[in-house]
Amino acid sequence: MDLHGKNVIAGVAGSTSGKTFHAIDPTTATKLTPDFEEASFADADKAAQAAAEAFAIYRRTTPQQRAAFLEAIATEIEALGDILIKRAVAETALPEARITGERGRTTGQLRAFAALIKEGSWIDARIDRAMPERKPLPRPDVRRMLMPLGPVLVYGASNFPLAFSAAGGDTASALAGGNTVVLKAHPAHPGTSELVMQAVTKAIATCGLPKGTVNLIQSVDTKVSTALVTHPAITAVGFTGSLGAGRAIYNAAAARPLPIPVFSEMGSINPVFIMPGALSERAVAIAEGFVGSLTMGVGQFCTNPGVVVAVASKELDLFLAKASELVAAAAPGTMLYEGIRRRYEECVATLAKRQGVSAVAAATTAADAKRTQAGARLFRVDASTFIADENLREEVFGPSSVVVVCKSLAEMEAVAACIPGQLTGTIHTAASDLNACANLAETLGQHVGRLLWNGFPTGVEVCPAMVHGGPYPATTDSRSTSVGTGAILRFVRPVSFQNAPQELLPEQLRNVNAAGIWRLVDGALTKDAV
Amino acid sequence: MDLHGKNVIAGVAGSTSGKTFHAIDPTTATKLTPDFEEASFADADKAAQAAAEAFAIYRRTTPQQRAAFLEAIATEIEALGDILIKRAVAETALPEARITGERGRTTGQLRAFAALIKEGSWIDARIDRAMPERKPLPRPDVRRMLMPLGPVLVYGASNFPLAFSAAGGDTASALAGGNTVVLKAHPAHPGTSELVMQAVTKAIATCGLPKGTVNLIQSVDTKVSTALVTHPAITAVGFTGSLGAGRAIYNAAAARPLPIPVFSEMGSINPVFIMPGALSERAVAIAEGFVGSLTMGVGQFCTNPGVVVAVASKELDLFLAKASELVAAAAPGTMLYEGIRRRYEECVATLAKRQGVSAVAAATTAADAKRTQAGARLFRVDASTFIADENLREEVFGPSSVVVVCKSLAEMEAVAACIPGQLTGTIHTAASDLNACANLAETLGQHVGRLLWNGFPTGVEVCPAMVHGGPYPATTDSRSTSVGTGAILRFVRPVSFQNAPQELLPEQLRNVNAAGIWRLVDGALTKDAV
Repeated sequence: MDLHGKNVIAGVAGSTSGKTFHAIDPTTATKLTPDFEEASFADADKAAQAAAEAFAIYRRTTPQQRAAFLEAIATEIEALGDILIKRAVAETALPEARITGERGRTTGQLRAFAALIKEGSWIDARIDRAMPERKPLPRPDVRRMLMPLGPVLVYGASNFPLAFSAAGGDTASALAGGNTVVLKAHPAHPGTSELVMQAVTKAIATCGLPKGTVNLIQSVDTKVSTALVTHPAITAVGFTGSLGAGRAIYNAAAARPLPIPVFSEMGSINPVFIMPGALSERAVAIAEGFVGSLTMGVGQFCTNPGVVVAVASKELDLFLAKASELVAAAAPGTMLYEGIRRRYEECVATLAKRQGVSAVAAATTAADAKRTQAGARLFRVDASTFIADENLREEVFGPSSVVVVCKSLAEMEAVAACIPGQLTGTIHTAASDLNACANLAETLGQHVGRLLWNGFPTGVEVCPAMVHGGPYPATTDSRSTSVGTGAILRFVRPVSFQNAPQELLPEQLRNVNAAGIWRLVDGALTKDAV
Repeated sequence: MDLHGKNVIAGVAGSTSGKTFHAIDPTTATKLTPDFEEASFADADKAAQAAAEAFAIYRRTTPQQRAAFLEAIATEIEALGDILIKRAVAETALPEARITGERGRTTGQLRAFAALIKEGSWIDARIDRAMPERKPLPRPDVRRMLMPLGPVLVYGASNFPLAFSAAGGDTASALAGGNTVVLKAHPAHPGTSELVMQAVTKAIATCGLPKGTVNLIQSVDTKVSTALVTHPAITAVGFTGSLGAGRAIYNAAAARPLPIPVFSEMGSINPVFIMPGALSERAVAIAEGFVGSLTMGVGQFCTNPGVVVAVASKELDLFLAKASELVAAAAPGTMLYEGIRRRYEECVATLAKRQGVSAVAAATTAADAKRTQAGARLFRVDASTFIADENLREEVFGPSSVVVVCKSLAEMEAVAACIPGQLTGTIHTAASDLNACANLAETLGQHVGRLLWNGFPTGVEVCPAMVHGGPYPATTDSRSTSVGTGAILRFVRPVSFQNAPQELLPEQLRNVNAAGIWRLVDGALTKDAV
């Protein structure tokens, strides 16, 4: 299966422009073949147009057709076999086991959305029957359900080449909801994206769907990205990456003549609060779990624990000693690409110089920059300094964390109150801590999308109850999640139908409830026909 | 019950600034007493702070407490009696029967939200139970529900002094969801807003809630408005008004260091498509219904039918003749305030001069500008001109409409395709039209929040299935509604709790389902305990 290195627009892999770029194997800092053609502005325009034309047809597909499509994509991704795994490993330096696991998560997500739309109740069908005799005015028949927005622009994420990229969560939720997709591949893994696009292309053919249902754009040029965000045919955007890039996309979308929703998932420091009882009970075990979470995937998870908060005590000293020992012993790892490594070293160097911050531990094995390596770091700061200096609350993307030492539980609560919006917040407790931590939990809960107990934030479960989101700057829209079946709600809007003829209603809103879905009829949930 | 003319911040009606403004009775263009104090920037800041302080307590109230509060507001509004009706009539020139009806709608909305939160299932509770034995990794316990955002800024609307103002839809949905409110009263009806605020203040006292749960800001200064939008404590905005003002608020919110959601409901021309069979069957009856909808409330509804679309025919001539006769006979009415009247006359004059537009009818009784009156107008244009000139697709707020004459059904569909986002779209059909109008319905449905058949868009039912929203420029966020119980979803966000101790979970997510609400447990809806 050769890589053609081209953009894929309405099924045609033939676009050309004068410029090319290429992927790099970060473990050796060497070029990977082939060259990939940079999309031109004309290509970006064509891709958005192709998605708009496909939408006119794709939006009318049945839930069963869409489910079959999602399942076909999953099957075709699996059929790519080792070629996909090897290319993703080569482009990202993520371990083979991790990539294999991520492939399973990706196909699992596609199948979870397929199951969700086959069941069908997610569309929030509501029927309020007419009351022709009502005084002073008769009540009309009003019915509503969720309908797709249109072509969705999905940005691939560098740190999840499969699960948050080509056929990842945003693509799956967009397609499940009835939208078409323009995929802007992340330039660090263009080959992985092209392989997944091959799988998608086969699924499109198998299912007889319009060729422009999913389109692939390859580019390192932020101007091409912006052209896609501001294209009139694009109706929503999903993005996972840095605060700078995510905010730029948000700003471009908000400045459009017709603004569109943007779901940018950006920086998060994922604070971990350790209550005194928990420290007394298991300081060493928490330190082990913490460093494992910190160094997993070279710290390149959105949910990486960047801050630990606890009250000064002998037990905290024990935690610090164990965590320092483990950080020192942690082998440096290869990061996703050189730009991320350089940025990590810059952030860590800046952090080390900040007033009141002291370095506690660093990996003793030197990181080899030529192999794009980075080593773990641990810092320490007093709570009063942390509260006073907002720079300390910015994400350092990579295996670095800061232990914030408090004088009291009240100071821990003050730390929770000053932390900006986060994907996650964690509290470690013993049974004896439960009463004391209620205020902390209440405060922290207002700043996060997910509040978790006695665990670590990395490892995001894909399930109906998951929220992978949170207040700004964790995301640009806290009313949504990018993980779990709840993500289907981001690319849809409610539409009402008043006094509509049965035959012109969407099937889900007709009197006979053919699909057997849950519907809110006159305010009460039922599966009954009307 | 005297009006004090002051802002109300944390229950204190004592703010002062150097400036005042006053309401005007539009029927006589004379000043109404008392003077109202302009809020200063310091007052705006204090109001936002008061709402933030109140939120820390109000967010912890139970659904029962919030429901009792909403019901108490409704009761206190009714207890205001004729004073409220008379003041609202004096400030808006809306007829007493209309204001009385609007009061009923307002108290009905408050009670509908109370019933919704007492029932409780709206929070979309989801529980995915732990699977400790799952391989390769155990599944954690994950639960989620919708939680309030924080202080919400609600702008009063000029055309609905009760239902979209002080204790109107946005205030009711914000409070029902657990948010506190800063109410920016519309300067055309400050007395009405103050009276309703008196009712709210009594309800706050009766229910023992924080005094800053709802705060009232009176101002004619757009800079004070902008200061509220950009205040760090404000977490969301609801607005109903012009495209210019709504977009300005959206832009200010998007430019904040921490952007917030804005639900601006703005312009809408609410096209009415009449199919040939419907024209043949009942051209005169449709004309009667149309002119009734057009002139109701001097055309000052967001859902006013500003465009009629049909194929040229003898039957259309009959419709035009009848509609012209009725428009000519319609008595001029007093508009809400002088600024709206002036703008209406300007828009109508501009429209009359546009290439290809011809005036068909105008109210024969002259409108008296000194009584802030406006008369109905009817224009006509060919579809090709309408499609070519986007200026013709802008809202004219008031009793003016344009009949777009098409050569064919295909041209009607082309008109539907070129129309920007709308609150509503209407199709009139006879039984013989149903097959022919499927494409039109499909196209129109993509541009509107509500698609209605054989009726007129004015008169928005308050019910669970209602969508009063739509793609831009109808609103800045098509994923929401401002009318009906679905509006509660605009000021909330999902939060997940992972492996949380039972006693620290919100009551709705605990194993025992004490409130007996519907919950999605392991993917299936149930009222059972876990």
